[in-house]
Amino acid sequence: MLDQIRIVLIGTTHSGNIGAAARAMKNMGIQQLTLVSPVADIDSEAEVRASGATEILDHARIVSTLEEAVADCSMVIGTSARSRHIPWPLCNPRQCAAKARQAIAQENQIALVFGRESSGLSNEELQRCNLHVHIPTDENFSSLNVASAVQVLCYEMRMASLQEADEEQTLQWGVPWDYEMATHQELERFYEHLQATLVDIGFLDPNTPKQLMTRLRRLYGRAALDKTEVSMMRGMLKETQRQVQNNEQSDK
Amino acid sequence: MLDQIRIVLIGTTHSGNIGAAARAMKNMGIQQLTLVSPVADIDSEAEVRASGATEILDHARIVSTLEEAVADCSMVIGTSARSRHIPWPLCNPRQCAAKARQAIAQENQIALVFGRESSGLSNEELQRCNLHVHIPTDENFSSLNVASAVQVLCYEMRMASLQEADEEQTLQWGVPWDYEMATHQELERFYEHLQATLVDIGFLDPNTPKQLMTRLRRLYGRAALDKTEVSMMRGMLKETQRQVQNNEQSDK
Repeated sequence: MLDQIRIVLIGTTHSGNIGAAARAMKNMGIQQLTLVSPVADIDSEAEVRASGATEILDHARIVSTLEEAVADCSMVIGTSARSRHIPWPLCNPRQCAAKARQAIAQENQIALVFGRESSGLSNEELQRCNLHVHIPTDENFSSLNVASAVQVLCYEMRMASLQEADEEQTLQWGVPWDYEMATHQELERFYEHLQATLVDIGFLDPNTPKQLMTRLRRLYGRAALDKTEVSMMRGMLKETQRQVQNNEQSDK
Repeated sequence: MLDQIRIVLIGTTHSGNIGAAARAMKNMGIQQLTLVSPVADIDSEAEVRASGATEILDHARIVSTLEEAVADCSMVIGTSARSRHIPWPLCNPRQCAAKARQAIAQENQIALVFGRESSGLSNEELQRCNLHVHIPTDENFSSLNVASAVQVLCYEMRMASLQEADEEQTLQWGVPWDYEMATHQELERFYEHLQATLVDIGFLDPNTPKQLMTRLRRLYGRAALDKTEVSMMRGMLKETQRQVQNNEQSDK
């Protein structure tokens, strides 16, 4: 998916932004950069900010019109700072990535178009786009740096491309884990051992247990222990019990 | 939600990155910035890159340790470039924002911690976090600019804050929680108490601690303890220590 996405920057005035955009693209696995009538050169400042993504700068295509930049694209998505006079299909970056993913499944080329630092895309340029995307910035401070906008959109494109791999084996945390989870039976034995130890140290009165074990089950159940953790906890309980036994023997 | 999120930058070496991070924050409606032992000053380069977000720079808190920066936070999220030796709950920015939203529903403060440009967060710093977040960069070019990382995380936080409010306040279990969460400082005291007790019972050799405390931090950090649970656990530790003391006295 990502190799079918092209980033198009129009009339960029700061070379550092071109470099930072290249870095953001490469971080997210996107390679194709097209510059439309750039005001800035690809200079040393651009290279500093690209921080190793120089081959994207080296291979950047420079053209004079948006038309040239996107002629072979089947979907052209324009970034828009706010809603314009003419209503247009407007989506947020996440919806935009979902749409791009659908289009790309058909082996199309897709362009994401970003405007000038000072004024964004013109109405005429926006009207050449199939779709407008708006990054939901704070109303009182809505002007996003152009490389930051590239970063957010490329991030969403990458997230969409990774989506299938996301549906892996997960914990309730929603994150993959490396050790095998403890079984229900192992957990029950751990709770028995914990309870016995708490009685041994005098913290739990078996006649008035209150809600102690319930609270502990809730706590450890929430953490979803793996097998190595259950072993570790039981080792701790064993040592605690040994202390109590020594105590009792020396009392005799 | 957004006013309960604190961005913490550790050891930042480029002032431009501090400014760009402030701009990214303000664009997304996040205001609180804490700098831990910054190498760079908040200079004119920072102000240029902040591009109008100067009041975030003006109000930035400067402290000397991560501990100070997050003492009152109930959830501390560390950004991690890759998986480390000991696996920790690791999520992507979207999952991270969902978790933050759940925690924030309880009026907690949350910290998002970003490391140095050259080397990120140290293992010790990462172990003080409840949760690690990894931005899914391309394997072959994974070093993200720190302000870009701030941009992506703040964007996801904003997206989460804009989600419809008809979802109820829940913990990671998806159930409402009744007690106030423990603060970072309360948890650190619990870990100290736990460690001392494990030494007392002879389970932890202070000379060869191995990864025991790391594993325990991971376990309890994952469970996200509330205040009553911390009290309960410390009560158990106190009784255990009392057993050991009795033992030692009767040995005399």
